[in-house]
Amino acid sequence: MSSGVANAGDVAGLVGRARDGEPRAVARLISLVEQGSAQLPLVAAALAPHTGNAQVVGVTGAPGVGKSTSTNALVRAYREQGKRVAVIAVDPSSPFSGGALLGDRVRMGDHATDPGVFIRSMATRGHLGGLSWATPQALRVLDAAGFDVVLVETVGVGQSEVEVVALADTTLVLLAPGMGDGIQAAKAGILEIADVFVVNKADREGADQTARDLKYMVSLGRRDRSGPSWRPPVVKTVAASAEGLDRVVTAIAEHRSWMAAHGELAERRLRRASAEIEAIAVERVRTRLGPAGHLAELVVGGELDPFAAAELLISGNLRQ
Amino acid sequence: MSSGVANAGDVAGLVGRARDGEPRAVARLISLVEQGSAQLPLVAAALAPHTGNAQVVGVTGAPGVGKSTSTNALVRAYREQGKRVAVIAVDPSSPFSGGALLGDRVRMGDHATDPGVFIRSMATRGHLGGLSWATPQALRVLDAAGFDVVLVETVGVGQSEVEVVALADTTLVLLAPGMGDGIQAAKAGILEIADVFVVNKADREGADQTARDLKYMVSLGRRDRSGPSWRPPVVKTVAASAEGLDRVVTAIAEHRSWMAAHGELAERRLRRASAEIEAIAVERVRTRLGPAGHLAELVVGGELDPFAAAELLISGNLRQ
Repeated sequence: MSSGVANAGDVAGLVGRARDGEPRAVARLISLVEQGSAQLPLVAAALAPHTGNAQVVGVTGAPGVGKSTSTNALVRAYREQGKRVAVIAVDPSSPFSGGALLGDRVRMGDHATDPGVFIRSMATRGHLGGLSWATPQALRVLDAAGFDVVLVETVGVGQSEVEVVALADTTLVLLAPGMGDGIQAAKAGILEIADVFVVNKADREGADQTARDLKYMVSLGRRDRSGPSWRPPVVKTVAASAEGLDRVVTAIAEHRSWMAAHGELAERRLRRASAEIEAIAVERVRTRLGPAGHLAELVVGGELDPFAAAELLISGNLRQ
Repeated sequence: MSSGVANAGDVAGLVGRARDGEPRAVARLISLVEQGSAQLPLVAAALAPHTGNAQVVGVTGAPGVGKSTSTNALVRAYREQGKRVAVIAVDPSSPFSGGALLGDRVRMGDHATDPGVFIRSMATRGHLGGLSWATPQALRVLDAAGFDVVLVETVGVGQSEVEVVALADTTLVLLAPGMGDGIQAAKAGILEIADVFVVNKADREGADQTARDLKYMVSLGRRDRSGPSWRPPVVKTVAASAEGLDRVVTAIAEHRSWMAAHGELAERRLRRASAEIEAIAVERVRTRLGPAGHLAELVVGGELDPFAAAELLISGNLRQ
C-alpha cells in the first residue's frame, strides 16, 4: 500500500480527516510516521498546532502480569467516562507492525466497532532509533487526532520501560503476586519509574504480601527526598473481571492533579519535548556524519584510536 | 579512590604495567575508561598500537540458563590451553560496577590466585551511552594487556544481546531445556545473533528436544541465504560438571577458522570499529548540541514541531 501523500496539502487533508475521527486517516498518518518517510517533517508541522491535549499513560511490567487485559479494562473504564481512547502497544521484540495484523484485531475485541477507540501495535525492533524515534511521533498523531487518553503499553521489561517514562504523563507499573516482589521490583529499576503500582491478579495468593512489600519499598525509596514528592499508590486489581480498575483510573487522575498543582506536568512535558528534539537532532547528525569507512580500517590496524577517529569523522563531515 | 592519572606519561606507565600482567594496572585502566574520564582519549591512544590480538567471545542467554557457570567453565578450559583469559560481565540492570565488589570475588572462585585470569563486572545502566560506549573501551584495555581470550557475558536478554554481537568475534547463545525452545529463540531474536548454540543443563529432561528444535530453526533460517554461510552448531553441555565444554571451545575455534577463511573476521572487526567510532562521534556531537532549552517550550506550546526544532538546534550549535 503506497502512501500517496506527496505535498503539504495532502498532509493537511489527512490531518483534517484524522481530527474528524476517521480511523483510516489516523492509521495512515501513523504509518507515515513509522516508516520515517520523507514527509515526516511535513506531517509533524501539520500536527504541531493541535497537540498538547492528550493525557499519556504508560502501562508496563513483566510478561504475564496481565498488561493487555489491564489496558483493555482501562479502555472500557475511560469509554464509560465518554473519553476517546487510543492504545499504542510497543513491542520491541517483534518485527511486525501495523493495524492490519491479527494481533490488533484480537486486541480490539469488544472495541472493534467503537469509533472512540483506536488500537495500534508498533514494532520498534531495528527501527530508526527504536522507540525513541517512532513512538513519540505516533503519540503526536493521536494527540492531534483528539484522543483524550493515550495508553502506551510496553511488551517486555528493560530499556523500553525507561523510555516509556520519558513519554508518559503517568506511568503504571503492573505486578502479579509471586512474580514480582519488592526486591525484584527494585532490581528491575521499576520503583523509580512507577507513578502508580498495580498489583493485578489480586485474587491469587500472595497479593497482599506483594502489595505490602511494594509499599515498604516505596517508603524506603522516598525517605531521602527533599521537598514534596508523589508517593506512588499501590492498587490491587483483577483486570479480567475489571475489579479495581475504577481505583486505577482515580489514581491516574490524582497523579495528574498532583503534577498540575506542583508544576510537574509542565516539567515532564518539557523534558519529553527536549528528549524528542535531541533524539531527532542526533539522528539527523548521525546521517550527516556518514560511515566511518577508512577510519575503521586504521583503528582495526592499531594506527588510530577510536576517539581520534571520531574527531576526524566529525571534522571531516560536519565542517566545523 | 582518586585516579591520580594526569598526563600521557602516567598513562603510558599504566599501559606498560598492564601489559606486564599487573592486575591492578588493568583494573585502573578499566576504571578510567568506565568513568568516561577526561583522560579517555589519552588512554585510547596509548592502547591502540597494542590491540587486535584478543579473541572476543560473547556469552548470552536468558536468566537461569547458567551463563556464569558456563563462563567459569570456559575460563578453566582456556586456562588448560595455557591462554590468558579475561571476563567482562555486563549487567545493564545493576547500578554497581567495579572489581572490589563481592560479586566479582565470588565469581573469581578458583581463579582468584591465578594471574592469567581477570574478571570484571560492568554496570552499564545509566552510563554514557551504556554498553555501546564503555564496554568496547574495556575490551581494548584487556586486548592491549595481552589477554588471549576475552569473554563478554551479558546479564538478561534484550538490547544488550544485540550490542554484544557488535562486539564479539563469536557469540554463544545459551539455552536450557524447557526454558527456551526454538520458537522462543526465534521470538527473542537470538537465532540471528548466535554463532554457536549451547544447550546447557543437558542432563535435564527435554534437552534433546530443545537441541532438535534449534537445529530445525537454524535450517529454516539459513535456507534463503545465498553464498557460503556459517551454520551455528548446537552443543549440549552440563556446565556445572564441565561436561561438553571442550566441544564448545572447539566450536568457537572452528567458527574463528571459518571466519578467517571467508574474510568474515576482518569484516566483523571493521564493523565493530565503525560502530565504535560512530558511537563516540555521535556522543561528542550530542554534547556539543547541548540541551533543547527554549525550543522545547515552543514544541510543548505547539508553536514548533520537533523536526523544525531539531534543525534549529543543529544550525544554532554546530554552526554548519
